[in-house]
Amino acid sequence: MAAIHAAVAGASGYAGGEVLRLLLGHPEVRIGALTGNSNAGARLGGLQPHLPQLADRVLLPTGTEALAGHDVVFLALPHGQSAAVAAELGEDVLVVDCGADFRLKDAAAWERFYGSSHAGTWPYGLPELPGARDALRGAKRIAVPGCYPTAVSLALFPAYAAGLAGPEAVVVAASGTSGAGKAAKPHLLGSEVMGAMSPYGVGGGHRHTPEMVQNLSAAAGEPVTVSFTPTLAPMPRGILATCSAKARPGVTADAVRAAYEKAFAGEPFARLLPEGQWPSTASVLGSNTALVQVALDEAAGRIVAISAIDNLAKGTAGGAVQSMNIALGLPEELGLPATGVAP
Amino acid sequence: MAAIHAAVAGASGYAGGEVLRLLLGHPEVRIGALTGNSNAGARLGGLQPHLPQLADRVLLPTGTEALAGHDVVFLALPHGQSAAVAAELGEDVLVVDCGADFRLKDAAAWERFYGSSHAGTWPYGLPELPGARDALRGAKRIAVPGCYPTAVSLALFPAYAAGLAGPEAVVVAASGTSGAGKAAKPHLLGSEVMGAMSPYGVGGGHRHTPEMVQNLSAAAGEPVTVSFTPTLAPMPRGILATCSAKARPGVTADAVRAAYEKAFAGEPFARLLPEGQWPSTASVLGSNTALVQVALDEAAGRIVAISAIDNLAKGTAGGAVQSMNIALGLPEELGLPATGVAP
Amino acid sequence: MAAIHAAVAGASGYAGGEVLRLLLGHPEVRIGALTGNSNAGARLGGLQPHLPQLADRVLLPTGTEALAGHDVVFLALPHGQSAAVAAELGEDVLVVDCGADFRLKDAAAWERFYGSSHAGTWPYGLPELPGARDALRGAKRIAVPGCYPTAVSLALFPAYAAGLAGPEAVVVAASGTSGAGKAAKPHLLGSEVMGAMSPYGVGGGHRHTPEMVQNLSAAAGEPVTVSFTPTLAPMPRGILATCSAKARPGVTADAVRAAYEKAFAGEPFARLLPEGQWPSTASVLGSNTALVQVALDEAAGRIVAISAIDNLAKGTAGGAVQSMNIALGLPEELGLPATGVAP
Amino acid sequence: MAAIHAAVAGASGYAGGEVLRLLLGHPEVRIGALTGNSNAGARLGGLQPHLPQLADRVLLPTGTEALAGHDVVFLALPHGQSAAVAAELGEDVLVVDCGADFRLKDAAAWERFYGSSHAGTWPYGLPELPGARDALRGAKRIAVPGCYPTAVSLALFPAYAAGLAGPEAVVVAASGTSGAGKAAKPHLLGSEVMGAMSPYGVGGGHRHTPEMVQNLSAAAGEPVTVSFTPTLAPMPRGILATCSAKARPGVTADAVRAAYEKAFAGEPFARLLPEGQWPSTASVLGSNTALVQVALDEAAGRIVAISAIDNLAKGTAGGAVQSMNIALGLPEELGLPATGVAP
Repeated sequence: MAAIHAAVAGASGYAGGEVLRLLLGHPEVRIGALTGNSNAGARLGGLQPHLPQLADRVLLPTGTEALAGHDVVFLALPHGQSAAVAAELGEDVLVVDCGADFRLKDAAAWERFYGSSHAGTWPYGLPELPGARDALRGAKRIAVPGCYPTAVSLALFPAYAAGLAGPEAVVVAASGTSGAGKAAKPHLLGSEVMGAMSPYGVGGGHRHTPEMVQNLSAAAGEPVTVSFTPTLAPMPRGILATCSAKARPGVTADAVRAAYEKAFAGEPFARLLPEGQWPSTASVLGSNTALVQVALDEAAGRIVAISAIDNLAKGTAGGAVQSMNIALGLPEELGLPATGVAP
Repeated sequence: MAAIHAAVAGASGYAGGEVLRLLLGHPEVRIGALTGNSNAGARLGGLQPHLPQLADRVLLPTGTEALAGHDVVFLALPHGQSAAVAAELGEDVLVVDCGADFRLKDAAAWERFYGSSHAGTWPYGLPELPGARDALRGAKRIAVPGCYPTAVSLALFPAYAAGLAGPEAVVVAASGTSGAGKAAKPHLLGSEVMGAMSPYGVGGGHRHTPEMVQNLSAAAGEPVTVSFTPTLAPMPRGILATCSAKARPGVTADAVRAAYEKAFAGEPFARLLPEGQWPSTASVLGSNTALVQVALDEAAGRIVAISAIDNLAKGTAGGAVQSMNIALGLPEELGLPATGVAP
Repeated sequence: MAAIHAAVAGASGYAGGEVLRLLLGHPEVRIGALTGNSNAGARLGGLQPHLPQLADRVLLPTGTEALAGHDVVFLALPHGQSAAVAAELGEDVLVVDCGADFRLKDAAAWERFYGSSHAGTWPYGLPELPGARDALRGAKRIAVPGCYPTAVSLALFPAYAAGLAGPEAVVVAASGTSGAGKAAKPHLLGSEVMGAMSPYGVGGGHRHTPEMVQNLSAAAGEPVTVSFTPTLAPMPRGILATCSAKARPGVTADAVRAAYEKAFAGEPFARLLPEGQWPSTASVLGSNTALVQVALDEAAGRIVAISAIDNLAKGTAGGAVQSMNIALGLPEELGLPATGVAP
Repeated sequence: MAAIHAAVAGASGYAGGEVLRLLLGHPEVRIGALTGNSNAGARLGGLQPHLPQLADRVLLPTGTEALAGHDVVFLALPHGQSAAVAAELGEDVLVVDCGADFRLKDAAAWERFYGSSHAGTWPYGLPELPGARDALRGAKRIAVPGCYPTAVSLALFPAYAAGLAGPEAVVVAASGTSGAGKAAKPHLLGSEVMGAMSPYGVGGGHRHTPEMVQNLSAAAGEPVTVSFTPTLAPMPRGILATCSAKARPGVTADAVRAAYEKAFAGEPFARLLPEGQWPSTASVLGSNTALVQVALDEAAGRIVAISAIDNLAKGTAGGAVQSMNIALGLPEELGLPATGVAP
């Protein structure tokens, strides 16, 4: 097979940098154009010093001129910018959008949370969800899930798909600071975040909420609500999503375990831990693996499911490359690390 | 007033060290005997190098010989050891127990979670709870609350006391590693915890759960269940408790706000933040202040209340000294820092 | 004594916030006007959430209108701004400048490192240096030392004052990120600094270098050069300064120890640790204490002296308040914490 | 080529875990026996949860029974244990020792620093040093360098090899906590190390000192002394080594730059950064790359060279695999990540 020629738009940010890190380890991909906006003209070495092989590459302005002529184009752009860029790329080019624009099916939800008109819906890059992998095969447009919805959907879809959980999910998730991006804001300074656990977007306002609702409702076959509280944790990467819902009457711990074992059987990157072992974000640093565990709290009558992912890897760039592999008919695991960098 | 002569049993651990740090700043207290067990005979300077004024003090073995003759004795001992020590101290000595032994009223809950027979119940050192302050005045025995119950009770009792919240609370709390103590265990190594968010005691097993149930049920006047998931966060100190419960029908955001404003009016150490500002553990490092905020998530129908405390200060030693002040008739704020060390 | 009325210019930054934290614990000080520039008009509660007692204070524009009429004015301003502000305050007002403007005696050094004309020289607020305490008594203008020069001068002046060390010092210091201030810059983001040790200003370019040269040369009575490499460490606060110089021929370990014991005898805030115990920044978090240790490396022929301070406390605001106490004839330790917040 | 069959002795520790992580990404290696001592019989999944592919492997007792029959055996054992294990493996087996036993040539230095008799000297696994790569080709025994000596030797050998630096080097290095290993010790608890920079082994006592002396003296062709101060930094991984030595008379910045460019020309894993860009440990997390920069401090007359490595990767396991590749005649870069995981 000839090498796959891939371009990355938004190569100076955290998501773009992680796409590049993973593509450098992908045996079938050759890295083509790299683009940025405010950083166009700059050497990549000053922006992404952890990628020494690409240090002398120079960022081009994001646009058709740079991005045309590749087999795959990864978009790591602020929301609202992907549609215009994708429209100018041919329909035979695989466009993998790490942004939010094409994740939601519900245009009204999009407009409520993003305040702009809905661009459309693309095949959804979370292959572990029921039916998702099939929809990705041969796709030419892929919407990579948000990092929180990746973690939360993997933790809870087995319970909903098996009809074990009530329709009101409660999620508290802790994210590393890279989830907030590379733009310099005072509250993201190291001095502010080290030693700090702090919530944000409390009360239903986070834009990832409707995506979780979409995924869990689809798994349940009925509307599910999600009370979602994201928190910022003092670490660069990682999401730990603590999710729970009422157990439906008569649900047993064995039934819960069986549903999760079935949901993750054969999955290369989503692993149910042995009973009694709980996931840590430290175990998945730099890895495309999601670790999941579940328990039944009998006193409170709730199913508690917890997942750990790397927000930039499985939660963004890893999910993007995994989906690309499926779309192109490559082995799904090709070039993707399943091991974390620990300790 | 003559100086209050105070002893600290368990002075080599984290709770004992924090009691000493606060007592060093208390204008009415003179620090007497310091005791330890495995560290008896050691200089404090090698164990608590942040307390240079006490560096040359030598730890005595924990027991009546060392602890007798003080006005106040703080116990920072492993659970199960307080009753025997307290029994040997006179009834005129104020004993402030930072351990769990005398917190619970329900002997069956004690036995279920601790596997030993219940020692009894002492006045409870969380003065912000309804009726608690009065019970502390003149008390000679005080049970200092657990760190998680302090954070969770402060976040949720106003909603329960005002009849706004349904009886099933869901709590996910992140704690700094000092909450796990100073005993060297592999999973608490810096190499393991930096970069790591990880849950433990999932599914209702954490020993602080019955204490939360006790406090919230008392506030509600009816049984409340708590689904509690503690997580370990990569920071030395601090608890962020994200708590929620279904809003009772017809509850409005204004009603929620009003209940919280009333609950914290005049409290020196529990502060409701202005609307829109959320608490961070970084703001309360080293401080006896608890910061609280609340919102109504209308889409999910839940009241979401979040508190931040320093687990060793307000969550242990600060609560202990605050309660001592009340018991002794001193100004409640005396010697206690309300400011955090930030950034 | 009537309360001392103190204003703080630059109250929204890290240095200004730490001055306020310490003044809140000072029994003789009443906090007056707080000023800022870009933040004028803002509530302090949104900017310094760790200072709840001052949350409702509103920042005034920095200038005579706000700052006049106080007994003491603390300046925590960008360099180059202090002279103009101080000139408008009366000569009977104590002005304590946390900035660099008045630290250097050598106008040429100032101009070389700061590129502007030299404003002058004020009494230097590091009372532990030979002769410095006397110069502070009754002073109406005080230049607070830089954070690195505080740490380095305390580590090395005893060796130079006793004639034990050769004239070429080598210093590598690690600083917490708060030393770089609160302005949002990409390389200071939490995502960038956690997990990162990185040098900056290598090769003699750091502006604190001439201040170290000044202090050590004065102690030695001859010119001393300093090879200074600062590094940024993944922690909010703290400086660990590792300093060395060749031992002069015949110098013994006993002579080194004796010189350091003599230098720090009776000092309330600079402590020589017992032999074999080395300082950690964690022991001085939030404290005005400097911990120092020294050894003679016989194989390499060097005296190695190491100090740990809190860059914002002893390295800035604590040094400022300590110097204020001396200038005003108050007890030097008044209101200053000597204990660290640990763990 | 048939797969290389590799065993790892000490697979439960940090070094062993990192060898496994890298071998999992090596296309020519098949992982055979894994051994431990105190953990023999345990599943690897509970000990190294970041390696999910090996989760069900069970540790065997370290010894010939388990280790025989492999092409390569990696030893990640406490010092003093390698010689006995290696002696029982055939001379045709490649033994790669991550421990200290066979690094030093000077038996007297070994005995002084380790207090036992010297086991011998094996080819030294730092291929970037002059002559080292040739000595590794076809070798059957390899001594992997210590992590600090790797960082320090790479930073300074070019200056010494080119005759630019005086014979007294001064090194201050900051290491992540994984360098101290996985044994649970109180001073390595997360509560203790977060927020802490602290020195240890000050004054020449660190066992890595004679290895630095050996490497730099060999490069210089004359005896070099090293004043070495290691410090523990609040991060799990990484070493930043700040190294300096007097510039010999007449040495220019251009000559220094030229020497470093020559030393690293063509090196796959040791990179001299462009002028003005300084290395950060964050850029090499999980990577086998060493980043180096150098400057001439004209005022102090010193060459200042700084390197950043991942102590477990290039500093241990990466150096081990790189050396294995050379010894076996494989491409030197095979299976080794040159990219860091950042941010």
